[in-house]
Amino acid sequence: MKEEDLFAKKVVEHMMESDRFSQWLGINILEIAEGYAKIQMQVRDEMVNGFGIAHGGIAFSLADSAFAFACNNRNNLSVALDTSINFTKAVNTGDILTAEAKEQHNGRSTGLYLITITNQRNETVAHFKGTCFRTGKTLV
Amino acid sequence: MKEEDLFAKKVVEHMMESDRFSQWLGINILEIAEGYAKIQMQVRDEMVNGFGIAHGGIAFSLADSAFAFACNNRNNLSVALDTSINFTKAVNTGDILTAEAKEQHNGRSTGLYLITITNQRNETVAHFKGTCFRTGKTLV
Amino acid sequence: MKEEDLFAKKVVEHMMESDRFSQWLGINILEIAEGYAKIQMQVRDEMVNGFGIAHGGIAFSLADSAFAFACNNRNNLSVALDTSINFTKAVNTGDILTAEAKEQHNGRSTGLYLITITNQRNETVAHFKGTCFRTGKTLV
Amino acid sequence: MKEEDLFAKKVVEHMMESDRFSQWLGINILEIAEGYAKIQMQVRDEMVNGFGIAHGGIAFSLADSAFAFACNNRNNLSVALDTSINFTKAVNTGDILTAEAKEQHNGRSTGLYLITITNQRNETVAHFKGTCFRTGKTLV
Repeated sequence: MKEEDLFAKKVVEHMMESDRFSQWLGINILEIAEGYAKIQMQVRDEMVNGFGIAHGGIAFSLADSAFAFACNNRNNLSVALDTSINFTKAVNTGDILTAEAKEQHNGRSTGLYLITITNQRNETVAHFKGTCFRTGKTLV
Repeated sequence: MKEEDLFAKKVVEHMMESDRFSQWLGINILEIAEGYAKIQMQVRDEMVNGFGIAHGGIAFSLADSAFAFACNNRNNLSVALDTSINFTKAVNTGDILTAEAKEQHNGRSTGLYLITITNQRNETVAHFKGTCFRTGKTLV
Repeated sequence: MKEEDLFAKKVVEHMMESDRFSQWLGINILEIAEGYAKIQMQVRDEMVNGFGIAHGGIAFSLADSAFAFACNNRNNLSVALDTSINFTKAVNTGDILTAEAKEQHNGRSTGLYLITITNQRNETVAHFKGTCFRTGKTLV
Repeated sequence: MKEEDLFAKKVVEHMMESDRFSQWLGINILEIAEGYAKIQMQVRDEMVNGFGIAHGGIAFSLADSAFAFACNNRNNLSVALDTSINFTKAVNTGDILTAEAKEQHNGRSTGLYLITITNQRNETVAHFKGTCFRTGKTLV
């Protein structure tokens, strides 16, 4: 593992420690590298909406955590400006969702990330796009 | 209250009954009318991210519920296709968030809604835009 | 007219002078105020797509000009980061389109604007949302 | 070349014939396959904005054409619902822009496409995401 990726992992572990909502979601960190994050969670009964499928906020929240872990892990505190998500397949209780965040642009003041969410059958259930603003502050 | 608004309210109450994630968020329904919804919740400690402020997924989830309540309440089952959210102000534990969903377009097959989220000081903290697809099925 | 709005108008007139694509579109400036712009154009034959209706790029371009005129007119050079547009009604040759840009958020480093495009029958044909980054440089 | 890709190409050629705005842009079709399109154009002086760089509407329009060519080429007439574009690098007069549209989701009623635009130095200048509604009508 490259040194910068080890450091990226350390930054994310620091974030995750106090990220109580990601903890509630049951997020596991699978892989971290500079500008990259891969995380996973399982959908529980208490996460469904009025139609008995996972609330849109669940997939969004998972993607948003992956986005945060990817865009902050160079230790440059970054805040979400504009994010969008497309839902392409319903998500059910028990489904295991994996979110993978890939950096598209790493600018001095802003960044752009694409996050795909797949289920346990490797079907893509949502596509997320996130633009962040880099504050220049450090996290750790 | 107009008859169609009373019916809209009935549809939303039916949705809310089994919407376990909206229940977890602590959402209260303030006002429902055809193509319109106004709902509220208070941010709790377990909703924060690694920076000690509300996770982006919380504001999104509230807006997404308002969107669902507004776009489904003519009893035409509608699913979210594409949604986006802009974050303009940080949200803290204890903040009371109000989401108001207004219909911009009510097409036969699709709909468009804008949702604004304000805090207890009437500051706008997020802007949400949602496009839905109408299935033609009924909810109640 | 307030002094700051007069200045805003001067900045936009300066932008428009060298904005050759807005000139090609035939854009007329109807009203400018701080953080606000209202502009108009007429759709011509050469602006249609393969279906004989206005190309999506025409409505987008009009909205994007309104966005630029609104977000730059405090003389703080701002660049578009993320923009989205929803199309709610087809636009035809001869239609007169009016774009109105309203500021939703005027932050130190970023801004958020909503632009609606209406036709000559006052029907909304598109909704545009734009996030900009403020460079801190001046235009005039 | 597969038969369905040949047919896809035929559909796009039919669209392009009457697409006067894509013609004005100077779009060349490089490659077409089912749900896929790769097209190119060169930025001209008359396409700049008030800052002397390419107007945001130019990159959007190129991406939107690529989107239309990709999402319609199964001969199922599809209309854009929601599109968004992120600008990551300025575009100048003389730049040669290539847009590549890749299908992310091909649903019965809707589709999702990602389009990247690169310049002649293979730098990505914009990322576009498009959601379309399928009407079920044919084009040719």
